[in-house]
Amino acid sequence: MAEKITPRSQDFSKWYQDVILQARLADYSPVKGCMVIRPNGYSIWEKIQSNLDQRIKSTGTRNAYFPLFIPESFIQKEAEHVKGFAPQCAVVTYAGAKDLEEKLIVRPTSETIINSMFSKWIQSYRDLPMLINQWANVVRWEMRTRLFLRTTEFLWQEGHTCHETLEEAEKMALKMLTIYTQFCEDVLAMPVVQGLKSENEKFAGALRTYCIEAFMQDKKALQAGTSHNLSSHFAKAFHTVFLDKDGTQKLVFQTSWGVSTRLIGGLVMMHSDDRGLILPPRVSSPHVVILPIFGKDPSTFTKIKQKVHELKKMVLNSVEIKTLPYPLEIHIDEDETKQAGWKFHEYELIGIPIRLELGPKDLDLNQVTFVRRDLGKKEGVPFTELSQKITEELLAMQKDLFEKAKKFRMDHTHLISSYDEFKKKIATEGGFYETSWCQNVACETKVKEETKATLRCILLDQAFQVRTSQNPCVVCSSKSNTVNVLFAISY
Amino acid sequence: MAEKITPRSQDFSKWYQDVILQARLADYSPVKGCMVIRPNGYSIWEKIQSNLDQRIKSTGTRNAYFPLFIPESFIQKEAEHVKGFAPQCAVVTYAGAKDLEEKLIVRPTSETIINSMFSKWIQSYRDLPMLINQWANVVRWEMRTRLFLRTTEFLWQEGHTCHETLEEAEKMALKMLTIYTQFCEDVLAMPVVQGLKSENEKFAGALRTYCIEAFMQDKKALQAGTSHNLSSHFAKAFHTVFLDKDGTQKLVFQTSWGVSTRLIGGLVMMHSDDRGLILPPRVSSPHVVILPIFGKDPSTFTKIKQKVHELKKMVLNSVEIKTLPYPLEIHIDEDETKQAGWKFHEYELIGIPIRLELGPKDLDLNQVTFVRRDLGKKEGVPFTELSQKITEELLAMQKDLFEKAKKFRMDHTHLISSYDEFKKKIATEGGFYETSWCQNVACETKVKEETKATLRCILLDQAFQVRTSQNPCVVCSSKSNTVNVLFAISY
Repeated sequence: MAEKITPRSQDFSKWYQDVILQARLADYSPVKGCMVIRPNGYSIWEKIQSNLDQRIKSTGTRNAYFPLFIPESFIQKEAEHVKGFAPQCAVVTYAGAKDLEEKLIVRPTSETIINSMFSKWIQSYRDLPMLINQWANVVRWEMRTRLFLRTTEFLWQEGHTCHETLEEAEKMALKMLTIYTQFCEDVLAMPVVQGLKSENEKFAGALRTYCIEAFMQDKKALQAGTSHNLSSHFAKAFHTVFLDKDGTQKLVFQTSWGVSTRLIGGLVMMHSDDRGLILPPRVSSPHVVILPIFGKDPSTFTKIKQKVHELKKMVLNSVEIKTLPYPLEIHIDEDETKQAGWKFHEYELIGIPIRLELGPKDLDLNQVTFVRRDLGKKEGVPFTELSQKITEELLAMQKDLFEKAKKFRMDHTHLISSYDEFKKKIATEGGFYETSWCQNVACETKVKEETKATLRCILLDQAFQVRTSQNPCVVCSSKSNTVNVLFAISY
Repeated sequence: MAEKITPRSQDFSKWYQDVILQARLADYSPVKGCMVIRPNGYSIWEKIQSNLDQRIKSTGTRNAYFPLFIPESFIQKEAEHVKGFAPQCAVVTYAGAKDLEEKLIVRPTSETIINSMFSKWIQSYRDLPMLINQWANVVRWEMRTRLFLRTTEFLWQEGHTCHETLEEAEKMALKMLTIYTQFCEDVLAMPVVQGLKSENEKFAGALRTYCIEAFMQDKKALQAGTSHNLSSHFAKAFHTVFLDKDGTQKLVFQTSWGVSTRLIGGLVMMHSDDRGLILPPRVSSPHVVILPIFGKDPSTFTKIKQKVHELKKMVLNSVEIKTLPYPLEIHIDEDETKQAGWKFHEYELIGIPIRLELGPKDLDLNQVTFVRRDLGKKEGVPFTELSQKITEELLAMQKDLFEKAKKFRMDHTHLISSYDEFKKKIATEGGFYETSWCQNVACETKVKEETKATLRCILLDQAFQVRTSQNPCVVCSSKSNTVNVLFAISY
């Protein structure tokens, strides 16, 4: 029944796939490159959606829904955009038993179709800012796919906003970067580095792309979210204009920003272990599983059964539990066809934060056996202290996962100025490399070709080290125009 | 600014379109047959989703997500299914800059792709029942489209379940019919008739299709939801089998069921009036709008502003409001660039259930002016009674809309046995026609050709009239094998 999970130390990639498949988060589908998100995985996405959606709405942004299909001519209107996306497009050429006059692209992202509507809806400055978000599926044809991290179809939210000035667009792009950062850190226990993409790595059609980068257990980077200042690039292509207070027509300034089901892959690679999934409590469902353990004496069966239901009720109604920032979910597993050992393995595998066992001995002692998924240590907790204990440990676990991940990143972040040392170190150790770069694409390309590392971002904050002077470019040693950047091998 | 809404009596179709466009529920997109759901419309969908999702989960069903694309060969595996859907399919023939080896259908519904996964996931009777739902977009190429009611792409939920026996599948199909009925009646204030589709009208691939039918203000029927007992039709095509307790392999029995964004169109056509949208409180956001009305004396401005915020806080914190089955949302519109008259019109148009006005006179009298959207009558309500009044009126409005719609349906439901009378009456009056039918497709077709009415369903309950004996078929007068049915002209 229980398959073996490949240890991380042996093959990280295989471990990742084993955890996803065995914890039933997702599965391969018969359609090349498309995955199926199974209930255990989708329930994480539901938690992500409901929490992030509130944060997005707190900015005044409202949800809407735009067509899946984009006329081919729309994609072609913005020169950079079409260059970036055309090779990845899936194209409907035939529909309703007829060849189409104009081919339809299955949206890879919705800037173009949404701009065509903005042009219709926006008349004057009174209509601005216009702040729209959609939760949707998108399709980008990929050659090499990996569950959650890179799939032909994925789910995401994409925000699209219009503003009167470039400054306001810039402010909005940065506001969303902050919201993504707080969301990742508070909810996913996922520390991220904020940065700006190089010209080479920015979104096709953007003026500037901001990003958050997370650090995985195999010491690779994962881009976890992006926020683009689009300036008026799409507004120009779609003639999205407004009548300003001064009576003249002006182009709007725009942003777009998104995170996707890729976050689930990041969660797995950041927190889980060789026994399976470890989920931060805020995205776990349920948070607690209670297992009645029936010993050999049938006379205790009823008492144990009664007691687990009593405990569930007591905990859910306790004052302490109501201080949690989410409604607690408790599952009692009374399935008598499964052995206790099988259940221990199962709930570890699928990452339920807290497991409680109640056997005849526990009952005698008026306690439950308490196990936190990330620590694995068993301890007795008296019934009277259970609500308090669950509350404390759920909060502690959320915090501990974050701190552990942050420490791991710090331990593998290197401040480096010698290119030779950088090349040697990254080949053997992986990790984040903070260094300086002259903003010349030749140097960026050289690093990529010689080390496989990419320029993850120009650092917005000085998360690792305070650097006070202009340092020479790690590649060419030029001192002019250098910025602090982060290099890493990435997903 | 304010466009005129065509009165219902003049042109119901135009009225419907005017309400949708002017209340900004949806808009036409540049992609033929695809609509854009704007924030005012999408917020109704969000309320529908969150409430119905809970009801679906209460059956033990869990959400998942399956690929948008279906290999062409899958659609062809079930003979009836391909016949029904092939003419409506949108087909991807080209992707990633290459012609595809096998064409991909953009899902019109997901029985086939989901069955391919069920076959992989289901081994034994221990894996049953397997209860899955997905919220997704689907595409069915339509020649004549209408906002929300019939669009090439629409949003829906589709449930797919597997069971050990046909009886269990039947029970599940009926359970979902009940859930849809309760949801429509309790949340959308939409009375529905439950029935069974004729062989002619059933889902392509089903053994039996159950449906709920709603009655619109223009006396036409709208199919609001369907629930199918699929028997083993798809299981056979996809070899979805389980090892039963007796050691033999058996085909699973299945159901599928869905409701879509069409419900929003139904809501509009059932409750709204010539001044715009009327929304049942349970799907409205916000429920209450407060308008500070500034008179000529600027000295009262600050007092009025303070008071509206005070009132909002008081109401939200009151004991009465907490008895509502949803969290109350109140919006204060302080925009000083808009006139009060413009605002009255706007909030009537977009269907906010309760409008409160607070002007200098109200302030002197310690009251607000209270207007319920569906009644339109102004009345003064003392501050001290406001929470109680809002609570009562929201509950009453929800109930009144339901009762009004039900009475309207009853008033236009005719028990009829003469075919000549039926033909004459339906041509002049529209309405629901309850009568008897011999289950012969020839009689069903004759009605359709001669009256444009379709057989909406074989009645499950006797919603209108108790009929005790076998009546002759309204068309051919045969007395054998007759059932009670509902005819109507439909959307």
